[in-house]
Amino acid sequence: MSPHAVLTPIWQRQLGTVCRTCRIKRLRPRLVSVGAVQKRRYFTPVTSSEDDSKEGDGDGREKVVILGSGWAGFVLSRRLDPDKYRIVVISPRSYFVFTPLLNDTCVGTLEFRNVLESVRKRNRRVEYIQAWADDISFADKTVTVESSVLDPDVGHALTGPRKTNSSVEKPTDKAPGPGHASVEGFIDQNVQMGGTGKQQAPTFPVRYDKLIIAVGTYSQTFNTKGVRENAYFLKDVGDAVAIRRRILELFELARLPIIPEDKKRFLLHFAIVGGGPTGMEFAACLSDLIREDISRIHPELLKYIRISLYDVAPKVLPMFDAALADYAVKQYRRQNVEIKTSHHVEELRKGFPNDAEAAQNQDEQRPGLVYTIRTKEEGDVGIGMCVWSTGLMANPFVAKALNHVLQFPAESAQITQGEVADPSQRQWTIQRDPKSGSILVDDHFRVNLSAQAAEGETEETVPQACMKDVFAVGDTTKLKTGALPATAQVANQQALWLGKALSKHPDPESFAQSAGFTFRNLGVFTYVGGAKAVLQGPNTDHEGIAKGLKGWVAFLLWRGAYLTMTLSWRNKFLVPMQWLAVKLFGRDISRF
Amino acid sequence: MSPHAVLTPIWQRQLGTVCRTCRIKRLRPRLVSVGAVQKRRYFTPVTSSEDDSKEGDGDGREKVVILGSGWAGFVLSRRLDPDKYRIVVISPRSYFVFTPLLNDTCVGTLEFRNVLESVRKRNRRVEYIQAWADDISFADKTVTVESSVLDPDVGHALTGPRKTNSSVEKPTDKAPGPGHASVEGFIDQNVQMGGTGKQQAPTFPVRYDKLIIAVGTYSQTFNTKGVRENAYFLKDVGDAVAIRRRILELFELARLPIIPEDKKRFLLHFAIVGGGPTGMEFAACLSDLIREDISRIHPELLKYIRISLYDVAPKVLPMFDAALADYAVKQYRRQNVEIKTSHHVEELRKGFPNDAEAAQNQDEQRPGLVYTIRTKEEGDVGIGMCVWSTGLMANPFVAKALNHVLQFPAESAQITQGEVADPSQRQWTIQRDPKSGSILVDDHFRVNLSAQAAEGETEETVPQACMKDVFAVGDTTKLKTGALPATAQVANQQALWLGKALSKHPDPESFAQSAGFTFRNLGVFTYVGGAKAVLQGPNTDHEGIAKGLKGWVAFLLWRGAYLTMTLSWRNKFLVPMQWLAVKLFGRDISRF
Repeated sequence: MSPHAVLTPIWQRQLGTVCRTCRIKRLRPRLVSVGAVQKRRYFTPVTSSEDDSKEGDGDGREKVVILGSGWAGFVLSRRLDPDKYRIVVISPRSYFVFTPLLNDTCVGTLEFRNVLESVRKRNRRVEYIQAWADDISFADKTVTVESSVLDPDVGHALTGPRKTNSSVEKPTDKAPGPGHASVEGFIDQNVQMGGTGKQQAPTFPVRYDKLIIAVGTYSQTFNTKGVRENAYFLKDVGDAVAIRRRILELFELARLPIIPEDKKRFLLHFAIVGGGPTGMEFAACLSDLIREDISRIHPELLKYIRISLYDVAPKVLPMFDAALADYAVKQYRRQNVEIKTSHHVEELRKGFPNDAEAAQNQDEQRPGLVYTIRTKEEGDVGIGMCVWSTGLMANPFVAKALNHVLQFPAESAQITQGEVADPSQRQWTIQRDPKSGSILVDDHFRVNLSAQAAEGETEETVPQACMKDVFAVGDTTKLKTGALPATAQVANQQALWLGKALSKHPDPESFAQSAGFTFRNLGVFTYVGGAKAVLQGPNTDHEGIAKGLKGWVAFLLWRGAYLTMTLSWRNKFLVPMQWLAVKLFGRDISRF
Repeated sequence: MSPHAVLTPIWQRQLGTVCRTCRIKRLRPRLVSVGAVQKRRYFTPVTSSEDDSKEGDGDGREKVVILGSGWAGFVLSRRLDPDKYRIVVISPRSYFVFTPLLNDTCVGTLEFRNVLESVRKRNRRVEYIQAWADDISFADKTVTVESSVLDPDVGHALTGPRKTNSSVEKPTDKAPGPGHASVEGFIDQNVQMGGTGKQQAPTFPVRYDKLIIAVGTYSQTFNTKGVRENAYFLKDVGDAVAIRRRILELFELARLPIIPEDKKRFLLHFAIVGGGPTGMEFAACLSDLIREDISRIHPELLKYIRISLYDVAPKVLPMFDAALADYAVKQYRRQNVEIKTSHHVEELRKGFPNDAEAAQNQDEQRPGLVYTIRTKEEGDVGIGMCVWSTGLMANPFVAKALNHVLQFPAESAQITQGEVADPSQRQWTIQRDPKSGSILVDDHFRVNLSAQAAEGETEETVPQACMKDVFAVGDTTKLKTGALPATAQVANQQALWLGKALSKHPDPESFAQSAGFTFRNLGVFTYVGGAKAVLQGPNTDHEGIAKGLKGWVAFLLWRGAYLTMTLSWRNKFLVPMQWLAVKLFGRDISRF
């Protein structure tokens, strides 16, 4: 009889699902004798998942630790076979963001939860620890992590090493510093306090059998003055929440009868920096909001609204062929988006344009009412907000944790090039791209090592090795076989390939002999507003005939394609419902 | 031909709706000649709604100013006839909260926007100014208001005069003080800075023809030590956001492998203070979350979870008859909710129980990891969070603005009792309940005045008057004909009656002669968890046979009844979709 027999009927039905899939058996459940009748209401399997010091958990599965919960890490956690591997995801945030729909959430076309997927799965085949990865010891096969449950940086784009992240209080910020609870009195005595953030946090080790680095990238400000403190980024859901609030706040402020007209013009001037798909899509979504909802709710404000999109390049949407890019730009012009190419942003600050005093007294602690963006071509321009959606920079974790000079991890690495009698006599470093800092990986996504060059050794003869149990995927990597763009599509395909390959070939030798990864370009699409999108087909040769689609067809393809990717059934259900509600009833503009 | 002919086709279809309802004509539109071709994309009617110094707007409608966007204010704004009145809502928050479903949002059964309705209507028959009401001049028929667009108190329960509101940083707080933008450089030069909050804000006057006070009440802490700073309230959506984050944070913290077992017990002990419907429903919703989602995602934590509900009274749910109350309590016990009646809460503080040092060093700026609730009966108990859902206190605005000694506002008031030759020779005050401070109103919701008693005058002979153009509805009032409970149902009915009566009888004389308000008790229902609710029928005589319903029938009635009340079509559509998604796929537990 089922070991759950002691439970009352009210619970059996709930837990029947758990029984039927037989998951609990694999994790060696034991009933906890809990004494009092009323506590018997809950079934409490005890597993060894909290015990990270043991390798595997005695049931024959290797323990795979995945660092990151973005496109690469999340898809991989779903693709690996949980019968073969014990899957542990370590990420500072407990959810995955479906980034193609993030723009929709900024303006209320979708709700934030519609674009999130929790890392934890309800049937518990994926385990999760909420922490930053700080360092890796390849010899001990251990990752040192730092708890991030209370970290205010979680959910926001990062623009630099965490200690230097701006403490400007955006409305969704949980400000760091003295206002934040310390866990010090709270944890096991032998846990170290440390970490790389502004405040110390508990750090602890997590062992692995296989490690997959999918930590992604940070947002690049190109060190433009004031951007880190004053811009709104568009990488994570915390950013989207801040943007949405700010947009609605600007309209509400401009409606106050006490704001003079010239100030209203500043408040309602929206600046977007970055002419790639993200920035253009945001401009499109904002334009939808204005045309469909603001025009009905705040029609008096329409005449003050401007949207300006800046880019240093002479052309926006460079990955599209000319006909499609022109069509997209024409759509934007119809919606009053001014596209300013070949503009160089030099500064972003709080205060009015051409106000030298405000320019001097940039108080970091006070969010601005009006901002000023200064470009080389136009000088000072007054704006309500600036959304920065350009450029990626290498993750500092990669720079820190993978910059060691290592002893040769004999168990984990094998020589792939060069002659070396005793590898342990040489010093080794992880191979990284000298320009971008990305991790160089082979077509099986294995991290590679190079020995420090000895006398007379060239690039072709210096000894190289590859790690059998450490992999890297996604934005943070660069394939030796040929660089790919840092997009969701690429990360998605890489993670799917690696998950399938590792599940099929758990043994490193057969894995090494399997066919390597090749990228299949499924095209690029960009939403251009007004329920239209442009889709560039797989033929990306700009000089050839582009198999592009336009207008409504692209839009339907786009929405349909999105729904079949990665979203859970909950969101596959709720996203169309939400779109339908917006179509019928308009967007909600409540600010809270 | 339509004045919109200059527009390109892309806009005509959008604005066709506006044309057809002919709303623009009433507001005297004029096309703004805007020169450049691309600006012609937006149609920009200019209205006089920003001009609050004019009485009415020249089209024959009286201007009705409604203070508040709760049940009474919001329902009234929808019920008044916009053909007869120009309706202006003044409220610090731009939305109405459908409070019966607020508990659902705390645990993720619904999304926050599903229970919000924006005050502004898309067809613009209701105008809105985001501000606190500070003071009223009955003689000038003017309300002085204080802009609240950037106010961090908006969206949270208020527990005392705004200057004293705690600055404890809850995750959704936009902290006040130096971190907050000042509008000073931004507004018209002749606008006064003032207000009652921690920071000065611009104040300006708004004239009215009729005024309706529906400002509601604050949350009562009974001055219990530490409650204002450390408790989570449940009155507004900002509170619900904070509660939801805290709940998920507690589970995520408890999952960290570095937290010892005894600390996990504190983290996962949830305390609720208040045995009325709100507190009991929150306990029920929390229990649903645990039983349906936490049991699948964090089964290891189940054995640590406790829910305790405290109340000073010997019985919970006193408005229900004994059989129904007992059924409800039995449901709660099955779900492991410990109901502790006759418990007096004496203190709520941060830190561990029986930790004298922590008790001394209560740093107001640091949110706690663990809290301690101290009751007279049990002493110190360690908890993860305390939700405070008991008690209402009078709104300080009422105390301040309606506490004046007035000159007799001859145009607006008429004598209803007593002999007085020359009313302007007497001093008058607004009638308020001496015990609670509520505004005393007659059965037509008119605000009443009493002359300061002269020699020899008794309560029956002292001159009294009623205002012809100042009304009050909702929680903030007390009917002279008999006090009613401060519930959504009462406020809803009052607002519907007043809206209908004012629309039918815009003239004060015919209004005075119409039949007065009578309350129709439609019953009370409380959700008890597990998709069950108890409904107490209209017969509220506890000694008689209660026409109660139990279990599943009550639940269906409850959900159906809610959907037909007050919610917009958008939410009437989205709420069932969301409930269905939760039923099929579980709740989302992502924290952001």
